[in-house]
Amino acid sequence: MDISEEALKKHADLAGKLSVTSKGDVDDMHDLSVFYSPGVGAVSSHVAENPDQTRIYTGTNNSVAIISDGSSVLGLGNIGPRGALPVMEGKAMLFNRFADIDGYPVVLDVHTADEIVAAVKAIAPSYGAINLEDIAAPICFEVEDRLKEELDIPIMHDDQHGTAVVVLAGLINSMKITGKSLNRTSIVIVGAGAAGTAIAKILALYAPDAQIMMIDSKGIISSSRDDLNDQKRQLLEFTNKRDVSGSLDDAIEDADIFIGVSKPGLLTQEHVRSMANDPIVFALANPIPEIMPDEAKAAGVAVIGTGRSDFPNQVNNAVAFPGIFRGALDNQVSAITDEHKIAAAEAIAALIEEPTPDEVIPSVFDDRLVDNIAKVIAE
Amino acid sequence: MDISEEALKKHADLAGKLSVTSKGDVDDMHDLSVFYSPGVGAVSSHVAENPDQTRIYTGTNNSVAIISDGSSVLGLGNIGPRGALPVMEGKAMLFNRFADIDGYPVVLDVHTADEIVAAVKAIAPSYGAINLEDIAAPICFEVEDRLKEELDIPIMHDDQHGTAVVVLAGLINSMKITGKSLNRTSIVIVGAGAAGTAIAKILALYAPDAQIMMIDSKGIISSSRDDLNDQKRQLLEFTNKRDVSGSLDDAIEDADIFIGVSKPGLLTQEHVRSMANDPIVFALANPIPEIMPDEAKAAGVAVIGTGRSDFPNQVNNAVAFPGIFRGALDNQVSAITDEHKIAAAEAIAALIEEPTPDEVIPSVFDDRLVDNIAKVIAE
Repeated sequence: MDISEEALKKHADLAGKLSVTSKGDVDDMHDLSVFYSPGVGAVSSHVAENPDQTRIYTGTNNSVAIISDGSSVLGLGNIGPRGALPVMEGKAMLFNRFADIDGYPVVLDVHTADEIVAAVKAIAPSYGAINLEDIAAPICFEVEDRLKEELDIPIMHDDQHGTAVVVLAGLINSMKITGKSLNRTSIVIVGAGAAGTAIAKILALYAPDAQIMMIDSKGIISSSRDDLNDQKRQLLEFTNKRDVSGSLDDAIEDADIFIGVSKPGLLTQEHVRSMANDPIVFALANPIPEIMPDEAKAAGVAVIGTGRSDFPNQVNNAVAFPGIFRGALDNQVSAITDEHKIAAAEAIAALIEEPTPDEVIPSVFDDRLVDNIAKVIAE
Repeated sequence: MDISEEALKKHADLAGKLSVTSKGDVDDMHDLSVFYSPGVGAVSSHVAENPDQTRIYTGTNNSVAIISDGSSVLGLGNIGPRGALPVMEGKAMLFNRFADIDGYPVVLDVHTADEIVAAVKAIAPSYGAINLEDIAAPICFEVEDRLKEELDIPIMHDDQHGTAVVVLAGLINSMKITGKSLNRTSIVIVGAGAAGTAIAKILALYAPDAQIMMIDSKGIISSSRDDLNDQKRQLLEFTNKRDVSGSLDDAIEDADIFIGVSKPGLLTQEHVRSMANDPIVFALANPIPEIMPDEAKAAGVAVIGTGRSDFPNQVNNAVAFPGIFRGALDNQVSAITDEHKIAAAEAIAALIEEPTPDEVIPSVFDDRLVDNIAKVIAE
């Protein structure tokens, strides 16, 4: 039975991966009168008069809404809210398993930025934080920016920032292997969607002197392009400082780092051989990476990471998001900031004392992860 | 410690009354690949292509959203979404306790009918059914009507229909005590909000020849009134057939049944004495009823019911809604209809083989309730 068949069978057997259960017993009329009418009336009045105490009396101290409109689900594209629901339930399982957080899946049957923002704002008081998930670029950028501005609870689009944090952690440790300084590297990122954009932004913040080039399906993002949307044009503020044009073939030459969030087989051994010494390759297309690890190694990479669990150095968002949200809830931060994301990446990297080519990123099952990340997510 | 203090303390101790937990174990990379990427991709694709199978592979076969804008919470009025959250969490506890249903509290930070309808429609694919709760009249009527028309999952505003079903059940059994036919009774309902309106509607359907009079804060609802909104004007289509005007003093004379969803102490012993023989009084104002049971008995009632758990014949929505939603989910009904509500009331009433003045409504803890109601909620 392959993994797809097994997944279908196990999902049908479970008939839903989550349970919502009571933390208190309701065994008699007295219990009912404490947890429901009339007792709960005193709690409701108190919370209404002291909204800052909502987290003391309700589950908002430990709840995260996992929200998607289903417009960019895994590698499946725009499959809509029902198609997205199994993924959001899976994400809630991960919140439960790794961070003991109550994850509430919410899939949206609306798809414009205005509609998504309105729906999320409407339901926001129900939750302690919001994890945006699988919303297509470029709408995901506007949605996250507006929600962060208009709501005072932590909000993070995990496809962007979860990925970016884990990539940065992997690069921090990779530098310990190659002896290079990230700030003096040349970095090529292929894929200018949610993940690629967020990776470029965090790298530009962490290593402002690094040379970052971004490539989309039309080639290097440069000022000579007349097909760039606003979001891609903004990337030019901190990428492609020499403003070169061309393709991956041009960009990859002498690059220190390749990061692919694009498509299978895009990076050849010739590309790798044309990179600078000790090249680092994070080939994150899933399930088939831009270059397979054995090919990359044969072509001389110092470190190869992928999105897959069956090779070393898996770039898995689940390394980052459980700890980030655990910290955001526990430390009552009103927003997850760039400083938080960088601190999280450093905390993740620090868990590996002596990085090796096969271990620059810890396993999602490293039980130190959540606590170590959570404590750096504070105001 | 009084009930309010105890409720505040227990709520703070629990810090949220619900847990969202996984039904499957995530112990290793294989589990992750089944319940999350890449395995879940096959499930998502399958559901996207076969949306009618969503309930097989996700929790929508067993989930109910409990949705409020906080505009009419218990007896507290418009206290907003945060104030409503403890009540919605309590309701989710009841769904869990009585019907093993996953209840998802959603409080809304929007308050017009258009905004509430838009928000609920946006999140609807996340759930198997929708329980509207504590939304003020008259907006609650428009919201429920529009959502029922525009969505194909079961939707019920429990403040209206849960209450109405339990009142009807209590009246069916009360008739066995007085020997009267409900269809030949004269019924006075005081309170023309969500509950009063729904009680009037279900009684007019179940007993079309009954004489029903409704009274709001301005007196009997009659065609001579020039202060009626659309919803109250519609009540005239099936209430006050003789079109009399006046006050409770006028309406109550010779009435067989009084149903109060209004305010404490409104019904006097003189009122009761002016009713027909064997009067039935459901005094549902909470926590202090329109007339206290001992006073009502002294004035000669045949049956007295209240909203309180410390007197016999508690009209508690929790007698009805767990079974109604259990049946709606299990039998995959696309809507909860008037026929369902009447069948539910009959199923509730039938659980008491020989009704007595102190037992016309079963206890919420009667463990036959949910199964007996659920089986009549079918297409």
